[in-house]
Amino acid sequence: MGSATPARRLRVVIVGGGFGGLACAKKLAGAPADVVLVDSRDYHLFTPLLYQVATALLNPADIAYPFRSVLRRLHNVRFFQATVAQVDLERRVVTTGRGQLLEYDYLVLATGSRSDYFGNDELRGQTLAMKTLEQAQRLRNHLLACLEHAAQSDDEVERRRWLTFVIVGGGATGVEYAGAISEFRKLVMREYPELSTDLMRIVVIEGADTLLPAFPQKLGSYAQRTLERLGVEVMSSTLLVSVQPGAARLSSGETLATETVVWSAGVRANDPAGVEGIERGRSARLEVDDRLRVRGRSEVIVVGDLAAVKADSGDLPMLSAPAMQQGRYAAGLILAAIHRTADPPPFKYRDKGTMAVIGRNHAVASLAGLQLTGFPAWVAWLTVHLYYLVGFRNRASVFLTWGWDYLRHDHPTRLITFVDADPVADRLAATTPSP
Amino acid sequence: MGSATPARRLRVVIVGGGFGGLACAKKLAGAPADVVLVDSRDYHLFTPLLYQVATALLNPADIAYPFRSVLRRLHNVRFFQATVAQVDLERRVVTTGRGQLLEYDYLVLATGSRSDYFGNDELRGQTLAMKTLEQAQRLRNHLLACLEHAAQSDDEVERRRWLTFVIVGGGATGVEYAGAISEFRKLVMREYPELSTDLMRIVVIEGADTLLPAFPQKLGSYAQRTLERLGVEVMSSTLLVSVQPGAARLSSGETLATETVVWSAGVRANDPAGVEGIERGRSARLEVDDRLRVRGRSEVIVVGDLAAVKADSGDLPMLSAPAMQQGRYAAGLILAAIHRTADPPPFKYRDKGTMAVIGRNHAVASLAGLQLTGFPAWVAWLTVHLYYLVGFRNRASVFLTWGWDYLRHDHPTRLITFVDADPVADRLAATTPSP
Repeated sequence: MGSATPARRLRVVIVGGGFGGLACAKKLAGAPADVVLVDSRDYHLFTPLLYQVATALLNPADIAYPFRSVLRRLHNVRFFQATVAQVDLERRVVTTGRGQLLEYDYLVLATGSRSDYFGNDELRGQTLAMKTLEQAQRLRNHLLACLEHAAQSDDEVERRRWLTFVIVGGGATGVEYAGAISEFRKLVMREYPELSTDLMRIVVIEGADTLLPAFPQKLGSYAQRTLERLGVEVMSSTLLVSVQPGAARLSSGETLATETVVWSAGVRANDPAGVEGIERGRSARLEVDDRLRVRGRSEVIVVGDLAAVKADSGDLPMLSAPAMQQGRYAAGLILAAIHRTADPPPFKYRDKGTMAVIGRNHAVASLAGLQLTGFPAWVAWLTVHLYYLVGFRNRASVFLTWGWDYLRHDHPTRLITFVDADPVADRLAATTPSP
Repeated sequence: MGSATPARRLRVVIVGGGFGGLACAKKLAGAPADVVLVDSRDYHLFTPLLYQVATALLNPADIAYPFRSVLRRLHNVRFFQATVAQVDLERRVVTTGRGQLLEYDYLVLATGSRSDYFGNDELRGQTLAMKTLEQAQRLRNHLLACLEHAAQSDDEVERRRWLTFVIVGGGATGVEYAGAISEFRKLVMREYPELSTDLMRIVVIEGADTLLPAFPQKLGSYAQRTLERLGVEVMSSTLLVSVQPGAARLSSGETLATETVVWSAGVRANDPAGVEGIERGRSARLEVDDRLRVRGRSEVIVVGDLAAVKADSGDLPMLSAPAMQQGRYAAGLILAAIHRTADPPPFKYRDKGTMAVIGRNHAVASLAGLQLTGFPAWVAWLTVHLYYLVGFRNRASVFLTWGWDYLRHDHPTRLITFVDADPVADRLAATTPSP
């Protein structure tokens, strides 16, 4: 076209509003580009605290922020609630679950990860997971319902079965959930006069020979000692073999009588349809070049859990910090293209450390070469999380309520909630076009 | 039996933990009787604020209190989560949905009310209700989903249809919900840059010739003027004839293009199976004697919405205040029987008035002969509700959060939430014994 034609505004589609996608959208605010953020839910989820929803400590709304509220002042960013049925890299178009077409000049793939059952897909229906708000609320309902069932039973064997909670996977999620349930046992079970506290059994199964395999060994040992002091049984070098109704069979030969097996043993990339041609790294993550781009397609950028990004010690972990840095980096790449400046230097992760909380007042943290445990680590954990939450809500009241409940360890949301299905809402999350 | 036999402790079963049932349970605290409170949910629900959950202003947990938490210090009161399949007045036993048997010496029936479709039961599936927490959450999901659908549509007619909200019934619930949606329109729709505020239409349909037919006429007129000033259309002397997909047909001949018809036009007694032999008053409420007892069965006491209790001007209204007074009265009757003292005098309702809030800063109240409107009525409303909520939670933080959100009119819970079904939790609410 002639030089008199004004430059068309670039269209950017971001698929997924987790830490990576949302960081990218925010960084693109004010740019001369039309940005669409697509997500099947209408909220950004602070996943590191899902286990607190699953133990009735936090409300779903405490860790979920409506995208529209977050994006309110970003006038060039539009929110579009839909699932993604297909990504067509050739035609540069994203098809939603309801058949809508979203064309792009730049595509940011940020669809995160989901539970991995390592080929044993039966486990999906036999265990409970904690990757989404739906799952965390189900887990909360399930935990509370088990207590009610136990309270109504006159049979000791049955009561013990209802009160045995098996957590498969001793990574950060498993450790944090086990610690939270042990606090729950201490503080909430006094409201069940029918039940004695020592009927409840909490077991963590870990395939490796230590908990928190992604952390320095010292921290894994500390986590194990702390959990055991809280009354949690830790079975390391042990795998879950199978789940039958009322029983979990372990690789040690032992069978645990239980109605609750929580799966936190593995995750894999949550890849959308259409990326089959892209090479995969570990956990089915998409291989990218050193600027997070799909090789041969510089307009497709992958961030967060979905991207296999090399670091000195293997791929970067599936955590919020790398995702956010990558999201901002992706935005920088797009801005450079818009302004026709040189590409930024290759992506480099600035490691800010990792941490996990264990029950109340204990945590482990690996920060800037330091290894913290106990109360100092817990204070570090609380500071980071409060800072992040308050940053989102920017409301004194959240700080007050959350801090207050957390310090008192109240469990104010102890509800077994059912939600009536609504076809109009269901349609938004539809994965196939409605007839 | 001989006089040497110690008196057996009386067994009291209370069916339903609403305002009436819970007040009765609390009043029986410490009595030499074994009390069982049966409810299909694990929480007491502050129903007057359901409409605020339905407009995303409050979290479900803000208006729902776990029974076990409320009953914690009442050592002779046990909570039993179950539906009731059958009440056998002859054999004096209550059968739960899962076939458990609860024997009683005294039975307090407090099962409340449910929506009444006046014989047109098709409407149940075609409209949305607001009597339970499930329904209020569904309504919130629906309302928010309608906005997303509208935002994704390029068709003006379709957009208007998604944004037309029809509320059938101009009683307190309908008026309060209409006012709340109009506030929602004003404050939340600015987060939908795709939509203009005046696309949203809110219509209240009322069969009588004035709103709030249960209030003095002056207050109904005030409510109508106030709603109209907030941009709500009020159609009085109008009935809903039928609902088709995308349309509501009215008795005026008009058809409204809409995806949302909220039913708040009628309620009837929510009677459990087994009470068929008992005479009925209006709205299928159970007839009782002047001491709230089923005639001929002095051990069966009926309280709250389920009971037809005569007052000077017809039956007492289905409100929390009569239910609570009746619940306490029922406990008094049982205590008199336990202590072998004379029956208390017949039940007499002390009228403390009624109120309804309209949008923000406006309300109507009929209190002790006074008729208040506007800001003074709103302050009265806020005082009573804050007092009640804080009484339940007894936590400074709830007061702070709720008051803060309410005054700022923030809608912090603006989530379209789905909850994964859990068979273990579902079984607690089962209405038929599991196979």
